[in-house]
Amino acid sequence: MDQKKNNRTTADEMLPLEDNPNVSPAVIRRLPRYFRYLRQLIRQGKARISSGELSSLMGVTASQIRQDLNCFGGFGQQGYGYNVNYLYSRICELLGVEAGLRAIIIGAGDLGRALVRAPMFEKRGVEIVSMFDVDPTLIGREVGGVRIRDMKELESFCNDLPVDMAVLTLPKDRAAEVSERLLSCGIRGLWNFTGKDLSLGDEGAIVENVHLGDSLMILNYRLCHPTENEQK
Amino acid sequence: MDQKKNNRTTADEMLPLEDNPNVSPAVIRRLPRYFRYLRQLIRQGKARISSGELSSLMGVTASQIRQDLNCFGGFGQQGYGYNVNYLYSRICELLGVEAGLRAIIIGAGDLGRALVRAPMFEKRGVEIVSMFDVDPTLIGREVGGVRIRDMKELESFCNDLPVDMAVLTLPKDRAAEVSERLLSCGIRGLWNFTGKDLSLGDEGAIVENVHLGDSLMILNYRLCHPTENEQK
Repeated sequence: MDQKKNNRTTADEMLPLEDNPNVSPAVIRRLPRYFRYLRQLIRQGKARISSGELSSLMGVTASQIRQDLNCFGGFGQQGYGYNVNYLYSRICELLGVEAGLRAIIIGAGDLGRALVRAPMFEKRGVEIVSMFDVDPTLIGREVGGVRIRDMKELESFCNDLPVDMAVLTLPKDRAAEVSERLLSCGIRGLWNFTGKDLSLGDEGAIVENVHLGDSLMILNYRLCHPTENEQK
Repeated sequence: MDQKKNNRTTADEMLPLEDNPNVSPAVIRRLPRYFRYLRQLIRQGKARISSGELSSLMGVTASQIRQDLNCFGGFGQQGYGYNVNYLYSRICELLGVEAGLRAIIIGAGDLGRALVRAPMFEKRGVEIVSMFDVDPTLIGREVGGVRIRDMKELESFCNDLPVDMAVLTLPKDRAAEVSERLLSCGIRGLWNFTGKDLSLGDEGAIVENVHLGDSLMILNYRLCHPTENEQK
């Protein structure tokens, strides 16, 4: 238990994250990883865990774990460890798992269809309410229980049912134009798989660019430079 | 042009990266991004680019770009900018794009099929030589010109044709067991989409874990904490 934790009041521990000046973007980037590991511990029926145990499970130092978790209010009791369920539900709350976010997928190609069938969204509290495409052979079909609609229906659909995020799996040369349309529909979050970096922050959009090819390149690099791998 | 560059000899500039003590893992992580942007410049027929232009294109500071590129030998000439083709070919070389790496995909489900059809591998010089699955309804079929083989044939296939990396798109509960088999077949690189972190570094494996769900969670977080987005 570090100093920071002991100096906090109980009320302070429950402050929402945006009011807490100690949470750095680096900590936020690590939260999803805690979410995964805690989920797994709950499935295994584990009620409490020490920072030491969590440390060897996750392959990070116990000190890093204590610092991270204390950042948003500390949940541990010295000698007793962390309450797994409480920690998990607090992280879920921070990550918006219970916020009832709604998503649409733009592009019903291979990747769009793979994503809609993945349990990833449901596990994270995101409901995929529709897919959209321009291909007449796809429009009207259902994939993973989700209907593929004509891109022409985008505006009327979002008018009837407000949508929080769009998953972009369309060709990259149409990414910028479609993004503008999505923002006009009131969609604020873009999960972008097109491979084209989108910077729409000035327009109030929140963009997560996913570049799978970059990850592949790092693997290539490491395969071709084996002597450097010890330090990774 | 910074001091570091000016102090280097031409011979030093051509040293392979593993012999260059100045390249940090953070720089290596950024190399694939340079690869993408330079590729795009080449397609646009651009022969030279200044660090300032590259800076506004990529949304990073010119100073960061100069530092990064100087790290592995510097390519710019003050007042002339960087030779785009030379820079691109040097980065390709560093990233192993011309190393002729061979990959197999384990799991011919939605994601495996989406990946095999993506141009990502070919663009990065990686050849997908086979897919493997245990599902008899998939075995023998071809997807994107690549044959799906029975997992039972894995060992004999790799014995006939050495494979550098395996793309794991199989269910996570089989990831650890299959990884051991892949390492026994002499495969050193694992591109892991199973959602289960694999740490096989002790066994000489090179693993890139891809957690798409983590990226989704960050988007969730940012949608639920809009006041924090200015600093991202």
